[in-house]
Formats: sequence, structure tokens, C-alpha cells
Amino acid sequence: MTRPVIEFWYEFASTYSYLTAMRIEALAADRDVAVRWRPFLLGPIFGKLGWNTSPFNVYSAKGAYMWRDMVRLTAENGLPFKKPDPFPQNGLLAARVAHVLDPGDVPAFSRAVFTAQFGEGRQIADPDTLVAILSALGLAADRVLAQTQQDTVKTRVRDAVTAAEAAGIFGAPSFTTADGELYWGNDRLEQAIDHALRLASR
Amino acid sequence: MTRPVIEFWYEFASTYSYLTAMRIEALAADRDVAVRWRPFLLGPIFGKLGWNTSPFNVYSAKGAYMWRDMVRLTAENGLPFKKPDPFPQNGLLAARVAHVLDPGDVPAFSRAVFTAQFGEGRQIADPDTLVAILSALGLAADRVLAQTQQDTVKTRVRDAVTAAEAAGIFGAPSFTTADGELYWGNDRLEQAIDHALRLASR
Repeated sequence: MTRPVIEFWYEFASTYSYLTAMRIEALAADRDVAVRWRPFLLGPIFGKLGWNTSPFNVYSAKGAYMWRDMVRLTAENGLPFKKPDPFPQNGLLAARVAHVLDPGDVPAFSRAVFTAQFGEGRQIADPDTLVAILSALGLAADRVLAQTQQDTVKTRVRDAVTAAEAAGIFGAPSFTTADGELYWGNDRLEQAIDHALRLASR
Repeated sequence: MTRPVIEFWYEFASTYSYLTAMRIEALAADRDVAVRWRPFLLGPIFGKLGWNTSPFNVYSAKGAYMWRDMVRLTAENGLPFKKPDPFPQNGLLAARVAHVLDPGDVPAFSRAVFTAQFGEGRQIADPDTLVAILSALGLAADRVLAQTQQDTVKTRVRDAVTAAEAAGIFGAPSFTTADGELYWGNDRLEQAIDHALRLASR
């Protein structure tokens, strides 16, 4: 049996991606499933749907519900929560950083960005916020930030968006398995893991 | 302790409402929570959001995902599934019937409509389908159908839409509790029941 794996597609500005980022590793480890963290951007995908901001801003009743849902779910999960202002934040720089880092450093970096943004209301588009996070993780913050401006890194982020679209992704978080099954939303994480396990045991 | 209650808001054309309709009574009975079935219409609400059809038709990637999700979820829940054509069906007549019936007859009628539509691919906008369903339930089909054309019944359905909007509802299924908390989606049913229980035990 090959080790089962799920791909975890997330956008740094996404509220529900925060919930998943904070629980996926413990859950996956418990089931002996590997997680591949796939940061991407929703902006270009939403743009093609005709939205120039989050659908939670476009559709006010849905937005009001989402914020209430987040208050309830973060409380249930024992996570801090503070609504960021503005929302959505621009997650581009954080995504580029994630595409510069060694894959092994991406989970801790991503959790720290989500916590800064949704737990403390900090500005993740501000390079200083990301420098502070990288430094706290013992990473070479200035070097990493400089690398985010390289064309190869920018291309890597764009390729991630293209790959997300090709997988049928239209929101975050999403999960995919080796056979191309797609699961959308923090609520579907358990099903994605179940499916990855079934697939690997065939 | 007053008996806890949740309001179950649903639209007959809604795929995920089918999943909830088929499981809510057993789940609620198990937790000793009462369910108030609140059929309403999504069309007028979607219309205000700028959609003249289901968002699953407006946004193709989301629609493709939803159909795949329904295949998986109905299989997991042991429910028959057949994609209806056209989608969405027009649920207006079924909603009017539900607002004519005694509340005690609404759950069985609603489950039969959902099963006809999503389990067998039948046309729920066709009065003959509803007559067959009502007759099978031992209800006076012709009399009920005639009553659906009364202004008082039409008003009752419109009032249900107004009440749904006032509750902040923007999709189906949704659940509300006595304190006005709103839960959206079949995935949130358990949380809504938990909350109704907490509320009643205060």
C-alpha cells in the first residue's frame, strides 16, 4: 500500500482555509495520510466569475452568515478569532513566500499567517508582518522576501492557480486526491482523507 | 426544560435539501428535538442576487462539483440519485401544496417529492406527479391541488419567502433556532440541533 496523500489547496485570505490549516496535520497524522500544502490565489478565479472581491462581500447575507459561522466554529475549535480589516486581505505576497520556502516549512509558515490574520487581525499584505513571522520561525526573512520578487517565483504562483483551475477548484479550502476527486470546504476534509485511504488500499 | 425545536427551511428544487429531508427526522428524534418544516422558495431570493437560475448553473465549476458531491453523498447515505432534467425544477407548486397540507403531512409529502425528483428524475412541476404523490399518501389530491390556486395559499408561500429573508437565509437547506441563530447547509444540521438543545436547557 502506497502512503495515502491529499492535496490541500488554500488561499491565505480565505476564512475557512484558516480552520483547515489549524487542524489538518493532526487529523491527517492520526489517519497516517500525508498532506501536500498547495497555496494558490482565489482572486484570478473569482475574477473570471465576475467578482472583483470576495463573494462574501458581493453577497451580503452570505457574508453576514460567514462571519457568524466563523465566530461559532473558531470557538468550537478553540481558535482565536478577530475579523480582519480590510477583508479580504491581499494574500499574494504570503503565497509567493510559501512558494519560496522549502515544503517542510510551509505548514508552520501558513498557520502563522492565518493566526496573525484571523486570530490577531494583523495585515498579511504588509511585508513587515511576513518578516516577523519568518523570523520567529528561524527562517532567513530578508532573503526569502527578496526571492518573492523573482520571476520564477511569480510564475510558480501563477502555475498553482492554473493547476487549481484545472482540478476544477472554485473556492478554498479544497482537497484533491490522486484520482482527481475534488472536495470543497473545511467540512469535507474528513471525506477527502477517507477517500485517500480507500484509494491507497486498492 | 421546553422541548427544543429547529426550523428546517428548504426549497423543493434544492439538491442538498433532499439530503437533509431524508435524514432530519431520525436525527432529531434521536436527540429529542422537534422539527418545524418550513418550505420556501429560493427563486425570489436568488433573483435579488442577480441570478435568474440556480447558482450551480451560473457558476459551472461549482455546478460540476455539486453534482459529483451529490453522487458521493447520496451513495454514502444509501439514497437513490438521478440528476433531474431540467435543473432546477420549478418547486412553486410543490411549495404551495406543502402550505395547504396539515403540518403533520408535510414531512412525508416533502420526502416523496424529493425522492421523485432526485431519486427517480421525475418532474415535480407537473401537477400529475404531485397528484400521484398525494394519492399514495392517502391525501385528497384533487382537493389539495385546487386549494393551491387560492390567494391565501399563494400569500402563505410568499410570506414564507419574506420570513426566510428576514432570518438572513440565502440558500437551502438552512436551519434556525428560537434565538435567531442561522445554520446553512446539510453539513450544519448537527450543529443546529446541538444549539437548540443548549438553548432549551438554559
